[in-house]
Amino acid sequence: MEFLCDNTIRWYHFEKGDNMHIEINRVSKTPLYLQVKNQIKNMIISGALPADFNLPSERTLSADLKLNRSTIVKAYSDLKAEGFVESYVGKGTVILAQLSKDKSAEKTYIPPLRWNQLESRLFKRNNEQTITNMLSIFEKDKIISFASGIPSEDSYPMEKFGELQVDMLKKYKEKLFMPVGVEGSSELKTAIKGLLNAKDIIVTLKQLIITTGSQQGIDFWGKLFIEPGDIVIVEEPTFTGAIQTFEAYGARIIGIPIDETGMDLNILETCLLKYRPKFIYCQPTFHNPTGITMSLQKRKELLKLAYYYQIPILEDDPYSEIRFEGEHLPTLKALDTHDYVVYLSSFSKTLSFSLRVGFIAGNESVLNRITGFKQLSDIQTNTQAQYFVSEFINSGYYKTHLDFIKNKYKKKCDLMVALLSQSKIQGLKLQVPQGGYFLWCKLPDTLRLSELIENASSYGILIMPGDVFYPNGVIGESYIRLNFSYPSEKDITEGVKRLIKAIKKCSNISRSSKASLYTTINPFL
Amino acid sequence: MEFLCDNTIRWYHFEKGDNMHIEINRVSKTPLYLQVKNQIKNMIISGALPADFNLPSERTLSADLKLNRSTIVKAYSDLKAEGFVESYVGKGTVILAQLSKDKSAEKTYIPPLRWNQLESRLFKRNNEQTITNMLSIFEKDKIISFASGIPSEDSYPMEKFGELQVDMLKKYKEKLFMPVGVEGSSELKTAIKGLLNAKDIIVTLKQLIITTGSQQGIDFWGKLFIEPGDIVIVEEPTFTGAIQTFEAYGARIIGIPIDETGMDLNILETCLLKYRPKFIYCQPTFHNPTGITMSLQKRKELLKLAYYYQIPILEDDPYSEIRFEGEHLPTLKALDTHDYVVYLSSFSKTLSFSLRVGFIAGNESVLNRITGFKQLSDIQTNTQAQYFVSEFINSGYYKTHLDFIKNKYKKKCDLMVALLSQSKIQGLKLQVPQGGYFLWCKLPDTLRLSELIENASSYGILIMPGDVFYPNGVIGESYIRLNFSYPSEKDITEGVKRLIKAIKKCSNISRSSKASLYTTINPFL
Repeated sequence: MEFLCDNTIRWYHFEKGDNMHIEINRVSKTPLYLQVKNQIKNMIISGALPADFNLPSERTLSADLKLNRSTIVKAYSDLKAEGFVESYVGKGTVILAQLSKDKSAEKTYIPPLRWNQLESRLFKRNNEQTITNMLSIFEKDKIISFASGIPSEDSYPMEKFGELQVDMLKKYKEKLFMPVGVEGSSELKTAIKGLLNAKDIIVTLKQLIITTGSQQGIDFWGKLFIEPGDIVIVEEPTFTGAIQTFEAYGARIIGIPIDETGMDLNILETCLLKYRPKFIYCQPTFHNPTGITMSLQKRKELLKLAYYYQIPILEDDPYSEIRFEGEHLPTLKALDTHDYVVYLSSFSKTLSFSLRVGFIAGNESVLNRITGFKQLSDIQTNTQAQYFVSEFINSGYYKTHLDFIKNKYKKKCDLMVALLSQSKIQGLKLQVPQGGYFLWCKLPDTLRLSELIENASSYGILIMPGDVFYPNGVIGESYIRLNFSYPSEKDITEGVKRLIKAIKKCSNISRSSKASLYTTINPFL
Repeated sequence: MEFLCDNTIRWYHFEKGDNMHIEINRVSKTPLYLQVKNQIKNMIISGALPADFNLPSERTLSADLKLNRSTIVKAYSDLKAEGFVESYVGKGTVILAQLSKDKSAEKTYIPPLRWNQLESRLFKRNNEQTITNMLSIFEKDKIISFASGIPSEDSYPMEKFGELQVDMLKKYKEKLFMPVGVEGSSELKTAIKGLLNAKDIIVTLKQLIITTGSQQGIDFWGKLFIEPGDIVIVEEPTFTGAIQTFEAYGARIIGIPIDETGMDLNILETCLLKYRPKFIYCQPTFHNPTGITMSLQKRKELLKLAYYYQIPILEDDPYSEIRFEGEHLPTLKALDTHDYVVYLSSFSKTLSFSLRVGFIAGNESVLNRITGFKQLSDIQTNTQAQYFVSEFINSGYYKTHLDFIKNKYKKKCDLMVALLSQSKIQGLKLQVPQGGYFLWCKLPDTLRLSELIENASSYGILIMPGDVFYPNGVIGESYIRLNFSYPSEKDITEGVKRLIKAIKKCSNISRSSKASLYTTINPFL
């Protein structure tokens, strides 16, 4: 406590360890009580003096600062009038923190929160609202959609579904509304285990968990394995949801071109050597968007490469039950003798998309981590939907239903192919699938994709532009994906007409050397 | 091309730019054909020569290496016999990459994939399997659980539920199995908007999305805002699912102690100043695990602090509809005049946990990002569950149901409190709530929590240890959380008996100075 000339500098220490620094300038024109008041006020506003904090008594402070007690009384009284402090009998003068926040003249303006600046930089914005848009159109009428990836409305055995729901209520009662565990109901897991066994995929119940659609499996897989900058291998083109998910986790995606027998394994091997990727994501059967099925020989070779380079494979297999023709091929998981493949599938394509019931099967330690993610994400998949699927499978009706939709979708596929073939649009080429949901079309070379999509929309026909299936987007500009599962046969007939009109409207197709141009761009059609 | 003494070193360049280095040692005892064969074989195995690659013709190679053509013929023929190459008319000798992977004697052992080493380091393992364990016990009998957080089995209006399902099938038909858009069905969003309006939360439909339970909202919020090392503020104790989620994204969690009126705002302000956290997560009403409700004054003061320090608040409000007594208090979101609060709730506590229907309401740009996450996670919440909830609300039965469960759970709460009070266990203190699901109990100070949990399990009674609700786990060792919504009144009676037995078994309770010890540990009970 020292006094230097007329400029008194006074450090005041509170007992509780907080510092309150008050500087008294005796030569200043500012009245002494105002010097005290303003400094305390600033300390309150800045937060240096916390709410509910006791100020020293007027007597103590006046003694410490060598000021008249009336000076401190006046300072405290002003602070009180402005709502910064309050005096209580037996407690003294206490700081009212909350009032300092908005009653002080300095802080009446509350700025809008800059939410964007708070966001983590780890997860990329996905600007593509494709799927959102695709889904939300289903409430509109008169638009024909070839752009979706869902079953048709008339594919649902509504009578059977109705019976099933009544039976389920009788059988399970309250249990329909109770939890079943993070990893899924044992009834459904057992039923799926049976389906998998029939496909030579042998798993224990611990190697199988139920997901809220297989997109959730892709998301958890990405979360588990991808660190920003990691390399991930996919087929090129591939499922948009996988591209966007892996990119959101910061992956660099390498696409391996495919031909009619699947991935080009030579290019794959070069990439495995060069990039040492984290994993290979792959849809071997009725691939989305091309409908292509990987040959048995390539499946075996792919596994050998995976073993050799010690790279895991995520096999996404939602379409393989919908085979119109040709022989059933074993899944990668069925061929995998060394636990390198994790297998995803769902009932979204065979039963109902909106049930959101899928599953993931494979390595137990991977599934343990994914169970942990699921617990912190949606805790479990809707109970009733799980019983719905297990009852449907166990009733034996699932096989009947698969036969029904295979027949139905084959007809639609054939119709779409026939109508497009009849159109005789030069340069239009079709990849006719043996099953699944999609017809992949190579457009005439001189046609601009964006113009086509626009024209098609103006005619009320939605199609999926090819570029969304390419990690880099560019090559895909020559392609569109047409879905034949969702539209009715009538809509297919009308929709193809509209599509042809849209193609004809936008193109003045050059009649030269399409075939050769085409093969230099992508050899697989 | 040079020849040095008898040691001929020969570099052979392929036209396509690949290098094949063959060194011929003319003084070696190894036959010349074997030297050629082994070097080519090694280049194939190492991957230096890729699959499908054409070897030079026998004639070219023999000329280049100055060897007899028969030497090369023998080398190639051995490579063929071992499955490394194949000869095709018009194409010459081609490397069979796939065969190099397992037919070569060097690589018959396929190592197990080291999955753990591939995992991303970004997401923490959550070792706590608490919720998983809690959920999976529901398939066991004879165990009484006070450890859950779900409605009781007998709380479901099963007849009404049955009617509803029949009506829904008639009304919506196939629509029940169709997609409704990522952000949720417009029917449910409109119904929830109505419920929110009645609570003075005014939002547009764009400021509201349906989530698969509100845990999904917490997960997406964490994903959107947390980068590893970010500070996050929560009440202490708080909901385990929030702690684990924020920690999984790498947050450092600061817990703010609560008393009977909610968070200690002085400590909060000190932490806001000191740590500049990303956000405040908070359950103002019937807080899990303590059942405490934040006072109106504190709600207002908390908002002022948020505005002043520009920190967003995530308000988690699943229990507020279940008020037994006392006056309804406005939510933070209802009091928020500056769009700083994002509001989470669900139907998991009021209707059925396993429906997995929750929602998140607030700032539109935040919800846009969250919609993006949802699209890449589960695409949408189960359609039927969404219609189920909207029909239940729109039928007007929701209000009736809330009255029913409020009455039911109040009775159970009263019963549990009465039985525990009668037990006269010294040092046991109860935080009696005005609503919600939980009774928070301070244990006698000399009792070890782990011993109690173990004893309780051995008597067939499950209770939730307090430490799981603390970011650091330590203080919580004095507490347990008892749920009264799930067990029947009969089970509460029996369960409390077992719990008292378990407490008495493990403790030789010291009879001295518990109260004072207790207040020095945590002043809020």
